[in-house]
Amino acid sequence: MSALQERSPVPSDFAPLPRQADLQRWSEADTAARPARIAALRARVRSEGIDGLLLTSHADARYFSGICFGPNEEPTAGVSGWILITADAFAIFADSRYTVQARREAVLATPLDPGSDPGGAIAAWAQAHGVRNLGVDPSVIRHAIWERIREAAPGLTLTPTKGWGVALRAVKEPAEIERIAAACAVADRALAAVLPKLLPGATEAEVAWLLEREMREGGAEALAFDVAALAGANAALPHGNPGSRPFQRGEVALFDFGAQVAGYRSDMTRTLFVGTASDADLALYQCVLDGQQAAIAVLQQAMENGASALPSGRTVDEAARAAMGDANGVYEHGLGHGIGLQTHESPSLSRGAPEIPLPSPTVFSVEPGIYLEEQVGIRIEDLVAVDLERRSVRTLTRFPSAPLIVG
Amino acid sequence: MSALQERSPVPSDFAPLPRQADLQRWSEADTAARPARIAALRARVRSEGIDGLLLTSHADARYFSGICFGPNEEPTAGVSGWILITADAFAIFADSRYTVQARREAVLATPLDPGSDPGGAIAAWAQAHGVRNLGVDPSVIRHAIWERIREAAPGLTLTPTKGWGVALRAVKEPAEIERIAAACAVADRALAAVLPKLLPGATEAEVAWLLEREMREGGAEALAFDVAALAGANAALPHGNPGSRPFQRGEVALFDFGAQVAGYRSDMTRTLFVGTASDADLALYQCVLDGQQAAIAVLQQAMENGASALPSGRTVDEAARAAMGDANGVYEHGLGHGIGLQTHESPSLSRGAPEIPLPSPTVFSVEPGIYLEEQVGIRIEDLVAVDLERRSVRTLTRFPSAPLIVG
Repeated sequence: MSALQERSPVPSDFAPLPRQADLQRWSEADTAARPARIAALRARVRSEGIDGLLLTSHADARYFSGICFGPNEEPTAGVSGWILITADAFAIFADSRYTVQARREAVLATPLDPGSDPGGAIAAWAQAHGVRNLGVDPSVIRHAIWERIREAAPGLTLTPTKGWGVALRAVKEPAEIERIAAACAVADRALAAVLPKLLPGATEAEVAWLLEREMREGGAEALAFDVAALAGANAALPHGNPGSRPFQRGEVALFDFGAQVAGYRSDMTRTLFVGTASDADLALYQCVLDGQQAAIAVLQQAMENGASALPSGRTVDEAARAAMGDANGVYEHGLGHGIGLQTHESPSLSRGAPEIPLPSPTVFSVEPGIYLEEQVGIRIEDLVAVDLERRSVRTLTRFPSAPLIVG
Repeated sequence: MSALQERSPVPSDFAPLPRQADLQRWSEADTAARPARIAALRARVRSEGIDGLLLTSHADARYFSGICFGPNEEPTAGVSGWILITADAFAIFADSRYTVQARREAVLATPLDPGSDPGGAIAAWAQAHGVRNLGVDPSVIRHAIWERIREAAPGLTLTPTKGWGVALRAVKEPAEIERIAAACAVADRALAAVLPKLLPGATEAEVAWLLEREMREGGAEALAFDVAALAGANAALPHGNPGSRPFQRGEVALFDFGAQVAGYRSDMTRTLFVGTASDADLALYQCVLDGQQAAIAVLQQAMENGASALPSGRTVDEAARAAMGDANGVYEHGLGHGIGLQTHESPSLSRGAPEIPLPSPTVFSVEPGIYLEEQVGIRIEDLVAVDLERRSVRTLTRFPSAPLIVG
């Protein structure tokens, strides 16, 4: 069984805040990379035999055009930020609230006012640009808009497409990985800063807020998602909002949280022991840690063996489960997910993941867990960056994962 | 021209935090009101000649069933929280992550696991409950799910419906108005607490975070929306995220922000003057204030005249614009919007609002503005509760709106 951590981590154990020069460099890297990103999207449009594509997520909008929306802006922005692309045209929807921003940030795209009829505007744009076959994701677009495009452009074929933006975004550029690592460091530092306040009697909601405050005052422009802070048996809930339950001596404290830095996100989970740790809980913890290490080992072996491709997300997931044996309560969820401009992206590491090699370079979470209902839940989650060409497997989350007693 | 405020408001000027007993009372009021809310929804289903209805918003889920999702949970919850209703059945989608929560919170509804095929599950449920004509909102539901329901239940008619949940939620119960007022007080107190720190040189992003922190530590379980904090000419942007621009002496400081208390939200805007105020800016401020007061006066007159119905949202909007005359830069946006479980709800007060009486009792914002590009923007926003039966027009936002010089 692995030894307990000898001392509690402190914020200065981790990388410092990005400097203004880093932010500037990342912004310039995006500008330099954008033509190649757009070319890759156009290549896929061409290779799939269509001649136009609609993308509707703000993450795709930022990646391909440069426009930056606030973290909670999706509901209020409406269709602003939707992009339309052909072999030689590139447009971005921007209603009157966003015209100035689109001109300033999305310099390669032509702003297009959707008016009160976005479906009609899409149809008109497609016709004006000679599009005969437009790719649209039916699992995302509203039924009324799909129908309106068909009605307004009867000669236009709508071809169902899915996830073309997120597929390209799975392969990460160096400046993207740097930002994910910076977001990991913000979260690492925040947890270290909160440890001294994690005392028996503090409630889930109180500690969740302390973690959020540390991240927001320590370099995060936003959270990657709402902080989960779960005490004792609550940690066994597959899902739960922090509430009034206090952390208690002899119970676990599970934190799942992440930060956003210059658009890129982190995601980490640590399960700590309050006051003391029972042998039974430590054995469960070790089992989870074994699963995580087995997943990372399979990636490292591929690098050392000179493999010409990474293993699949399904293979990595299987390696973790195999190492955890038939332990009761082994996770039903997937082992991990890609991360970047969104918290959950491609690739997926799970039982149902496709048996194709993981992309490279890429970043994903590795987060096995064990959940015993009404008793205890333990999960450990790190972000891992892999790069086949450089033969590297790098854990971006730097907060140690050996068992730690707090309070 | 109205006099400047003689002293800066302080947090103790406003209502204190809700007590545990208030939270308990509101929760009990919801439980007591829920059967009538469901009955009203069923009455509309019946009166419109259909026999089943699908609602997909988390606000509707909470209002009709009692299930409470976290403020940012819409993207991760997927279809969990969608509700299906007929004359004698009431179901709520809850995947395995939400089963426990649905059983505990949505006690009048039957939890239904959507599996990996929500469209198929909707079709199967409709068929099992004898539904021949299901109301679905095509402006909200994804095209793929609409098509899947049609494919899986060929005999089922899908009738386009829109906003039936939000229409019923426009009429507010007393315990709902109390919570909106409590959320207003959280925001009032937070702005008062931040005033001493609103000094020349502080940046938009810094002060936005101070306001957020005051709300989150002063009774808000969440923000109603991201804080807007805009300095000088930025206040003229119809939309803008807080950035690195500092507040400067002689310029305005515009704050648009709101809190969430026990599910209900507030929304307020104040435009303050940093250090000093020019006569020109004070004249613009007075014009905006005149517009706001004219809107409220039209409502008060209806009460005093013994009107049998409230004026329409269009009439109130017109009254504000008439009072503002032909001032340059008068707002293009609507005068106001309903608020409750969502920040933007029915009714709408705008040029395009329907010419039907406002509902009663209800709560909405009154937020005229003047925006002079590259120069200055001024907006004043209060929440107003109207109750025709009680003949009352009550401003829930209590932070004074006379011009205030800070810093």
